[in-house]
Amino acid sequence: MSSVTASVMTDWRPTLYTVCVRDHVMIAHSLRGKIFGPAQRLHGATYVVDLELRRPELDSDGLVVDIGLASTALAHILGEFAYRNLDEIAGFRGKNTTTEFLARVVFDRIAQRIAAGDLGESARGLTSLRVTLRESHVAWASYEGALMASTNAC
Amino acid sequence: MSSVTASVMTDWRPTLYTVCVRDHVMIAHSLRGKIFGPAQRLHGATYVVDLELRRPELDSDGLVVDIGLASTALAHILGEFAYRNLDEIAGFRGKNTTTEFLARVVFDRIAQRIAAGDLGESARGLTSLRVTLRESHVAWASYEGALMASTNAC
Amino acid sequence: MSSVTASVMTDWRPTLYTVCVRDHVMIAHSLRGKIFGPAQRLHGATYVVDLELRRPELDSDGLVVDIGLASTALAHILGEFAYRNLDEIAGFRGKNTTTEFLARVVFDRIAQRIAAGDLGESARGLTSLRVTLRESHVAWASYEGALMASTNAC
Amino acid sequence: MSSVTASVMTDWRPTLYTVCVRDHVMIAHSLRGKIFGPAQRLHGATYVVDLELRRPELDSDGLVVDIGLASTALAHILGEFAYRNLDEIAGFRGKNTTTEFLARVVFDRIAQRIAAGDLGESARGLTSLRVTLRESHVAWASYEGALMASTNAC
Amino acid sequence: MSSVTASVMTDWRPTLYTVCVRDHVMIAHSLRGKIFGPAQRLHGATYVVDLELRRPELDSDGLVVDIGLASTALAHILGEFAYRNLDEIAGFRGKNTTTEFLARVVFDRIAQRIAAGDLGESARGLTSLRVTLRESHVAWASYEGALMASTNAC
Amino acid sequence: MSSVTASVMTDWRPTLYTVCVRDHVMIAHSLRGKIFGPAQRLHGATYVVDLELRRPELDSDGLVVDIGLASTALAHILGEFAYRNLDEIAGFRGKNTTTEFLARVVFDRIAQRIAAGDLGESARGLTSLRVTLRESHVAWASYEGALMASTNAC
Repeated sequence: MSSVTASVMTDWRPTLYTVCVRDHVMIAHSLRGKIFGPAQRLHGATYVVDLELRRPELDSDGLVVDIGLASTALAHILGEFAYRNLDEIAGFRGKNTTTEFLARVVFDRIAQRIAAGDLGESARGLTSLRVTLRESHVAWASYEGALMASTNAC
Repeated sequence: MSSVTASVMTDWRPTLYTVCVRDHVMIAHSLRGKIFGPAQRLHGATYVVDLELRRPELDSDGLVVDIGLASTALAHILGEFAYRNLDEIAGFRGKNTTTEFLARVVFDRIAQRIAAGDLGESARGLTSLRVTLRESHVAWASYEGALMASTNAC
Repeated sequence: MSSVTASVMTDWRPTLYTVCVRDHVMIAHSLRGKIFGPAQRLHGATYVVDLELRRPELDSDGLVVDIGLASTALAHILGEFAYRNLDEIAGFRGKNTTTEFLARVVFDRIAQRIAAGDLGESARGLTSLRVTLRESHVAWASYEGALMASTNAC
Repeated sequence: MSSVTASVMTDWRPTLYTVCVRDHVMIAHSLRGKIFGPAQRLHGATYVVDLELRRPELDSDGLVVDIGLASTALAHILGEFAYRNLDEIAGFRGKNTTTEFLARVVFDRIAQRIAAGDLGESARGLTSLRVTLRESHVAWASYEGALMASTNAC
Repeated sequence: MSSVTASVMTDWRPTLYTVCVRDHVMIAHSLRGKIFGPAQRLHGATYVVDLELRRPELDSDGLVVDIGLASTALAHILGEFAYRNLDEIAGFRGKNTTTEFLARVVFDRIAQRIAAGDLGESARGLTSLRVTLRESHVAWASYEGALMASTNAC
Repeated sequence: MSSVTASVMTDWRPTLYTVCVRDHVMIAHSLRGKIFGPAQRLHGATYVVDLELRRPELDSDGLVVDIGLASTALAHILGEFAYRNLDEIAGFRGKNTTTEFLARVVFDRIAQRIAAGDLGESARGLTSLRVTLRESHVAWASYEGALMASTNAC
């Protein structure tokens, strides 16, 4: 029946398992550009960070990922920035450390740790990630994307 | 390796940045059709509204969108309905103003404002939106979709 | 303009309406495998369960699904496990009842009920589901996927 | 030591056990008085309702109250108002059904049910209640107070 | 009956109406003292701020306070600190701007505005306040206290 | 003015600073007594635990308590029960480990640690505690009370 086919195609959704772990980090920074208004001044934020890890099949333990290793990796990555003024971190020179930019930074570092095996061998089966930074009760930003084939391959 | 390729394809996820802003609106309405049971009577709701805006690349300020302009646009759109009986709004005659229907209404109005430049020139780089209306601690509805090519083109 | 086309393709998102209902269940279980550490002991969890139901078009009542029928179906499925030790349920023998595994179990049972017509005739227009189990304020897991074509066909 | 004594007196806090159950209700109403601005129009609200029940000692089952009976009583009371226009309820004529006013209404009805034995014999040991109505993600109101001696006496 | 009397006295709770409004503020600061560890460095925070206003009787409109005036007063007070480095604010020199300290600062400023009539004449009937600053999903601090008699008197 | 005096007395609220830290624990248990219905079977729960610590004056660092020490103490206490079947813990024999009962258990253990100096010398200035266990999105229980004078005295 054609309308059914059309519907299924319109909602082509992958089969996916997701696990999410939450942590937080408190930082200072300033933003450059008049679009930022008062946020051009040195201020700060608490980011409550959600790390979602995804794969189409569970591993042999029935898991997406070892939640302990995922939490530890996230804590280590946030620890690099914790109680810091981001304006003084060399790697961020010339960048606006917006919430969406920082979501990408955390994504890339987690992807590297997965590739390095820090989340366990089984984590090589992960196919995509999403990192969300909640900056208040009324605003958040996220970055999501696929993990490179090189990550998934042995 | 073929199983890796299969996995990546099964979880074909776009690279996406998302920013979300939250607001709320309080309205009265009634619903027609026996499926609605007691909700056929005139009653009301608070909708806590999440507007998610998405794009594959950040703009030159490192942003998905000017969060101030997005919040203002959402507030204006909700302001049309705030403290109103939706049964008396001409545009909704003959429609059931269900939560999912209203999510679509907000989506369409935001899309129009983006096309009109109300969220800034950079907002023309937005590629999709999601609007979620939370009606209680145990129920919500959303509408999501791509923005028209005409919106993205200059 | 090629960059615009590319963007739209990168963010190819289906047009989708979603409705979500929430319930919860409290269970005991144990997990097998040294990766689980202390969770190998008999312990338990409260799972706050979000059932998302999706379709590309609303039905003739302006609904994704009859929210009352969806809530009842979810309550019945959770009722099978409520206040139980999952280690003693025959269908789970030899399985690790991880949060992600249980999300899949609830998904499959809801899909069966949709196919059986328990969520109403209109629910046959549903095209995908997502089931999320929140196990604490810092961790959750979900399973999502398309409903079979056989579900959508009459 | 006098400063210690003073501290203890300043923070004279009763020893108390509390149990809370949550439900919700959706209503329409209007408010009279120019202080209400646009809320003078017919509109509506979802109230997420928290009922806290308190006592200084647990009963012989180790409970503050039978949580099932408390939830049922709350559901029945909210059911009186569910999907109703409060402006048409005889008992509210000439009253502004503000959130704080409605918190008191729910409090009084729960107190009556406790006195009537609807929450069980043991519930006569309850000494105070608090009822909170959350009307959005940024506003709530509550009413709290002691239960009458007549409630506590056998 | 003496045990009843004892219970009522142990749980001597005032009859109270409360209204709460929520807002937020993002700031930078540093803390002095080795007890603060890495928080001695310049960092920042988002504080989600809940302002609770209390009184034993509603005013003639059926209100604890004009919620619009209360929200505006809170926004103005937080606006003094928004996107600021608290280390550079003259009034905070020599103070540790801990979360609990800042809760008191907001409390005192709201109390002054109530006394000045900024929350309306009726707000003179308010008898106590509580200010809570949520700094993450796992930590918050508050300050609460009575309003001076001079505030309540005409 | 007598009505003012009455109001102030009715709302006699202590001046109090509070700090709260949150953690969680997952356990199995069963409850005895027909009032518990299906919860008489072996099942389990996740408790999200809020520990509130209170005092009328801040210490010389501007703190209610060292939040790091408070979090560590809470984690240690919950660690005693984590991933355990409470029915097998000797100290709970013959007790119903209801949510409200467990709130008291955590309270008592924290009070002992404060008295022992585990939360720092300054923590002796704490005058009361509240422990809340959230068992689902619709139910929680708490225990609160004053700390003994012996705790506050040096």
